[in-house]
Amino acid sequence: MMVVVAYDVNTETTAGKRRLRNVAKTCMKYGQRVQNSVFECSVTPADYLTLINEVMKIMDQEKDSLRLYKLGTKYSEKIEYYGVQRHLPVDDVMMI
Amino acid sequence: MMVVVAYDVNTETTAGKRRLRNVAKTCMKYGQRVQNSVFECSVTPADYLTLINEVMKIMDQEKDSLRLYKLGTKYSEKIEYYGVQRHLPVDDVMMI
Repeated sequence: MMVVVAYDVNTETTAGKRRLRNVAKTCMKYGQRVQNSVFECSVTPADYLTLINEVMKIMDQEKDSLRLYKLGTKYSEKIEYYGVQRHLPVDDVMMI
Repeated sequence: MMVVVAYDVNTETTAGKRRLRNVAKTCMKYGQRVQNSVFECSVTPADYLTLINEVMKIMDQEKDSLRLYKLGTKYSEKIEYYGVQRHLPVDDVMMI
């Protein structure tokens, strides 16, 4: 199934930048980085739990926000996009 | 239906900050700001088109990225969240 992972972190700090970079590395095992802090991941139900566990180990639960949106298996019509199509590399910590 | 609006913009510039603030104002007519650049909006099919049109008027299509994820009407089980639950005010342009 397709899962959208949105990760909100303060990247004004070095630690925040590092957490976002590590979350990106984890998510990009399963999909692509479509915005600075948004990832579209194709996962099995087992992968999904692994993905959450891995991100939870990285995140600071008192500072960061993780939201997951499950689009199911027939997702192509559920996604629309406009403007720049960025496929951001994992190390890009753009200030948005 | 529930629509997740993800808006990627460079807020290092004053113009970028202004566009994000204006996108937030538009989206918050229909829902809430759950992350710095992610909004969960409850819309009718007509509202959805209006929302897109309004955001398109604000966005710089050569610089910004807009992605929309349609979760349908039965969406409560499609959303999971962890960490900080921010309900960010419209004027908050946090550097993430």
